[in-house]
Amino acid sequence: MSKPWVGIIMGSPSDLEVMSGAASALEELGVPHEVTVVSAHRTPKRMFDYASSAEKRGLRVIIAGAGGAAHLPGMVAAITPLPVIGVPVKSRNSIDGWDSILSILQMPAGVPVATVALDNARNAGILAAQIIGVHDTAVRSRVRSYKESLRSKIESSAKELEKKARKR
Amino acid sequence: MSKPWVGIIMGSPSDLEVMSGAASALEELGVPHEVTVVSAHRTPKRMFDYASSAEKRGLRVIIAGAGGAAHLPGMVAAITPLPVIGVPVKSRNSIDGWDSILSILQMPAGVPVATVALDNARNAGILAAQIIGVHDTAVRSRVRSYKESLRSKIESSAKELEKKARKR
Amino acid sequence: MSKPWVGIIMGSPSDLEVMSGAASALEELGVPHEVTVVSAHRTPKRMFDYASSAEKRGLRVIIAGAGGAAHLPGMVAAITPLPVIGVPVKSRNSIDGWDSILSILQMPAGVPVATVALDNARNAGILAAQIIGVHDTAVRSRVRSYKESLRSKIESSAKELEKKARKR
Amino acid sequence: MSKPWVGIIMGSPSDLEVMSGAASALEELGVPHEVTVVSAHRTPKRMFDYASSAEKRGLRVIIAGAGGAAHLPGMVAAITPLPVIGVPVKSRNSIDGWDSILSILQMPAGVPVATVALDNARNAGILAAQIIGVHDTAVRSRVRSYKESLRSKIESSAKELEKKARKR
Amino acid sequence: MSKPWVGIIMGSPSDLEVMSGAASALEELGVPHEVTVVSAHRTPKRMFDYASSAEKRGLRVIIAGAGGAAHLPGMVAAITPLPVIGVPVKSRNSIDGWDSILSILQMPAGVPVATVALDNARNAGILAAQIIGVHDTAVRSRVRSYKESLRSKIESSAKELEKKARKR
Amino acid sequence: MSKPWVGIIMGSPSDLEVMSGAASALEELGVPHEVTVVSAHRTPKRMFDYASSAEKRGLRVIIAGAGGAAHLPGMVAAITPLPVIGVPVKSRNSIDGWDSILSILQMPAGVPVATVALDNARNAGILAAQIIGVHDTAVRSRVRSYKESLRSKIESSAKELEKKARKR
Amino acid sequence: MSKPWVGIIMGSPSDLEVMSGAASALEELGVPHEVTVVSAHRTPKRMFDYASSAEKRGLRVIIAGAGGAAHLPGMVAAITPLPVIGVPVKSRNSIDGWDSILSILQMPAGVPVATVALDNARNAGILAAQIIGVHDTAVRSRVRSYKESLRSKIESSAKELEKKARKR
Amino acid sequence: MSKPWVGIIMGSPSDLEVMSGAASALEELGVPHEVTVVSAHRTPKRMFDYASSAEKRGLRVIIAGAGGAAHLPGMVAAITPLPVIGVPVKSRNSIDGWDSILSILQMPAGVPVATVALDNARNAGILAAQIIGVHDTAVRSRVRSYKESLRSKIESSAKELEKKARKR
Repeated sequence: MSKPWVGIIMGSPSDLEVMSGAASALEELGVPHEVTVVSAHRTPKRMFDYASSAEKRGLRVIIAGAGGAAHLPGMVAAITPLPVIGVPVKSRNSIDGWDSILSILQMPAGVPVATVALDNARNAGILAAQIIGVHDTAVRSRVRSYKESLRSKIESSAKELEKKARKR
Repeated sequence: MSKPWVGIIMGSPSDLEVMSGAASALEELGVPHEVTVVSAHRTPKRMFDYASSAEKRGLRVIIAGAGGAAHLPGMVAAITPLPVIGVPVKSRNSIDGWDSILSILQMPAGVPVATVALDNARNAGILAAQIIGVHDTAVRSRVRSYKESLRSKIESSAKELEKKARKR
Repeated sequence: MSKPWVGIIMGSPSDLEVMSGAASALEELGVPHEVTVVSAHRTPKRMFDYASSAEKRGLRVIIAGAGGAAHLPGMVAAITPLPVIGVPVKSRNSIDGWDSILSILQMPAGVPVATVALDNARNAGILAAQIIGVHDTAVRSRVRSYKESLRSKIESSAKELEKKARKR
Repeated sequence: MSKPWVGIIMGSPSDLEVMSGAASALEELGVPHEVTVVSAHRTPKRMFDYASSAEKRGLRVIIAGAGGAAHLPGMVAAITPLPVIGVPVKSRNSIDGWDSILSILQMPAGVPVATVALDNARNAGILAAQIIGVHDTAVRSRVRSYKESLRSKIESSAKELEKKARKR
Repeated sequence: MSKPWVGIIMGSPSDLEVMSGAASALEELGVPHEVTVVSAHRTPKRMFDYASSAEKRGLRVIIAGAGGAAHLPGMVAAITPLPVIGVPVKSRNSIDGWDSILSILQMPAGVPVATVALDNARNAGILAAQIIGVHDTAVRSRVRSYKESLRSKIESSAKELEKKARKR
Repeated sequence: MSKPWVGIIMGSPSDLEVMSGAASALEELGVPHEVTVVSAHRTPKRMFDYASSAEKRGLRVIIAGAGGAAHLPGMVAAITPLPVIGVPVKSRNSIDGWDSILSILQMPAGVPVATVALDNARNAGILAAQIIGVHDTAVRSRVRSYKESLRSKIESSAKELEKKARKR
Repeated sequence: MSKPWVGIIMGSPSDLEVMSGAASALEELGVPHEVTVVSAHRTPKRMFDYASSAEKRGLRVIIAGAGGAAHLPGMVAAITPLPVIGVPVKSRNSIDGWDSILSILQMPAGVPVATVALDNARNAGILAAQIIGVHDTAVRSRVRSYKESLRSKIESSAKELEKKARKR
Repeated sequence: MSKPWVGIIMGSPSDLEVMSGAASALEELGVPHEVTVVSAHRTPKRMFDYASSAEKRGLRVIIAGAGGAAHLPGMVAAITPLPVIGVPVKSRNSIDGWDSILSILQMPAGVPVATVALDNARNAGILAAQIIGVHDTAVRSRVRSYKESLRSKIESSAKELEKKARKR
């Protein structure tokens, strides 16, 4: 794989099941990326190093997923000037996801985290591609096609459902 | 002002007080932008036209703010391939902001909205600049300086507070 | 089936299990209806076409179900002058249904959605029949009988329970 | 005023400030209506009489507003076959409106209440007019005009805002 | 069984599993009682008759359980001068029990419902016995013994746990 | 005043404004009572002494109000066999009353607290009178009259409102 | 085992599964401790005795776990001058843990409880060791090593994940 | 002032009004302390330096207050082996304090933060003194006296209230 444009990180290996949705979306949209584990709470120095070297290493966007008191996205956003996308994970220790959402979303003025829906790492991948696509017309065009595919899937479902109804 | 890169829209003129925070952030960071009112519920056609023409008009990012059952950010994201940033507004008719947050954040797979904190339009502006900055080194450099200024403000506050404490 | 009076739409084929409750209620109450899939986020144009042609096609009421950031009911209500009934669906990606409820219920002044209980598509069907019944005495009479049947079921349960208690 | 088609009732005289929004909407849309106080908890017999005589008295829709443990809309819906619209009122004794919303919205299967947004009695009035308009083309036409007026107000706001921005 | 002092009612036969906890507590504490189904929404007249005849029939306390938009306890309390104990039931259609709790607890000034914990019908039974015990020394003495038995169960558990710990 | 039947206690003198509603209700209903401050957290021994001597001192019901992590009602209920009514107070340190409600309501099996609505000490007083009234026909009769007065107040409000409406 | 420094108590034997996490953390960190059951509601006197003798018996920290209306941690903190750590337990009767958290956390000024995350008794054990470690360098050094082990586990996970990614 | 034992830090100078409650409690209890501003998001390096040097500088406990997505307490706890007390601040940008509470409280296994009630910095100060008091008998004795003073204040309030009541 070519040099990654998007870094996907997560606070715990147990977040991988959710976070792999970001990787597969980026793969479908042809955006080179890397995946690793970085814990704000258990490896704070590693987190600092990852965030402060990201720009130099050529990353353009960082996707960070975490659950409970989820500090990883916000802390990475505090260190790097790159846009950071946060994925609230409804991990085993989370209170129905409310803690994950609020501790990622409610960042103070000056340090935004682009937060997506609970456990929706796929959307984080698509958003990263849209951000890359601001200047990269090939990626943007693949985003456009992807949206088309969503449309046609729904239209097929609709046709099928209507056909069944007529048969009754 | 030069041709806008970021479109700032809001569901109601009463959202302007909050949403002007996005405009002022973009001004400070030197990102050309436009501001207008587009209501998903009261001007659905206008919303469609705005969203479907945005890419062709040269916009790169859209910032959409709304309160209550806030459909504007998600509907615009449904139509344009551009990245859309959503600002949940704690409007007069909102239940402490919960409805605004959830109806912007919880988008289905395939249609992300980059959600920022409640009423934090300033962060939407900064995030838009970070997205532009992915390829525009001048903007990215201004984002970096802005982050520096945040740092030095806190350090000054800290020094002042410590000085006061020593005097006691 | 005769020309439909009520259109039942849902944001995703996975909502069908819940939404079929509306169809079966309308069937029991003798109200002709149609069922299809219309996604505000994945098929925005289809949604527009459906909503703006509904009145002309002879529909009298629209029932729309969706989950998460549920924009379908509100967007349809923004476009058609017909009464729109919203069914908040506790879909897989919903936060215990709160997002579904708030993003359907909390519509701004001017654009009401008649919201029913979480996952309670049956009640949406009954409400649609009550609305039809405002002028259609045959339908209203079937609503009245239905309410009677609810009463007698509870009274039978009560008798059974009391009989068991006496036997102890 | 001619014989009322819509009955507006509220659990307490202190709800009048909110509930008058329903009356003014119906006035604008030319729908004859009546307004009174009926408390499920303090005048249960009066509530029963009101609900069970409504249909015979020629009412077509009932709008009921209440706050806290708000039982009025649901109890009226239990008794009459007419469609009942519920307005959750954020009264002084309500917990930020959550109790009002949940005790009106979450009706069991068989007894729907068409719930509108918190304190949004205006929307209850509009919804009642839409329901009347299902068969009454004059009322429906006024609803359509009203929706047009919403659109043009937003478009004026937008133009004004854009003009101001250009002047800067 | 002798003439009942406590009436246990529930909104739906499906609440019986939870509500039987009240009956068993009253049995243990020697308080005669009756159990039946009374639905505020499906059998409003039955509810009225039950509540308005309760005092004359010799009941001293009413225990009412319901879920979702739970109006039964509050409506019964509106009609009878007897103390009414409400049991919020986390029924299938309830939103994690919040609707059940708030629509039973948040009664307006003048019409209290003595609310117990979610699904805790056993506590409703004990509370009813305590109320009877205000003047009935035999029942109060059984309540006292019951509290003693709670104490000794915990003390046994403690001893067992401590013994296990020492053995390690 | 004659020997008190109801003890009204509160966790802090700042709760007096809310809790005086219980005293005035009992005064209106002719039930002798006493009022004092007992803090579970700041005077645990005093709380123990109050609760364990209450029965012997002739009290029949205890009303306990507290806010935040409100342990007073539950701890008193743990110690005395008398029925305990809990009033959740929305004190300055409470999170919109949610902590007060949940820490009073959610008592474990075996130790009920009869919880009333947030800040609704008046209802605690009325409930205490209803409990006394189970055996005391004079008090029960005053409760009945009080309920009548509620009814007639609403009916007067209704007449007034209807008269105004006719005049327009 | 030597004389215990930390007392671990819980409101019910059913909390043991969660609370044993505290014991195993203290074991790993070499801190002598004891475990027993003490219920504020079912054994109030035992709770008083435990709390008021704790200091004299040589305990230095108390860890108290409870669920629902969880009064044990706060009541113990009301009686002893020792630091008390509270573990909110998501017990069977808890509303998703909210009641447990709020009734432990929201203590009034003057009586703190050091609250840890829901069901996170392990963290209570580590916090107790950190408190002991304020003056005990051996314990503090074991805490430091433990934190190191957390770091190295995450770093191993990261390496493994990165290796897998490269192989694809 | 002598060398500080407790470090009080806060994420923003606007938190000082709340956080000064910790300083005044420590002053009353004779515990030397320092106060400064350290922002996890705006001065991440300063936060790292503060946390990693705290132990060597002789601090024994750290009190950290922050609001919204409050990462300061958890990040400091990730770096230092000292016990960290977190104060959730209901800052201007917080959603009624829920975000502040959850992002401080819900730390993952291995990295506890001793969380106190919302805005209750005073309790953080008292808890820090209790922790120091584990080995420092002078401080513990002052904590004991402080608890006594709480008791006597409540008892005075009680006497005053009872005297007033008798006079009526």
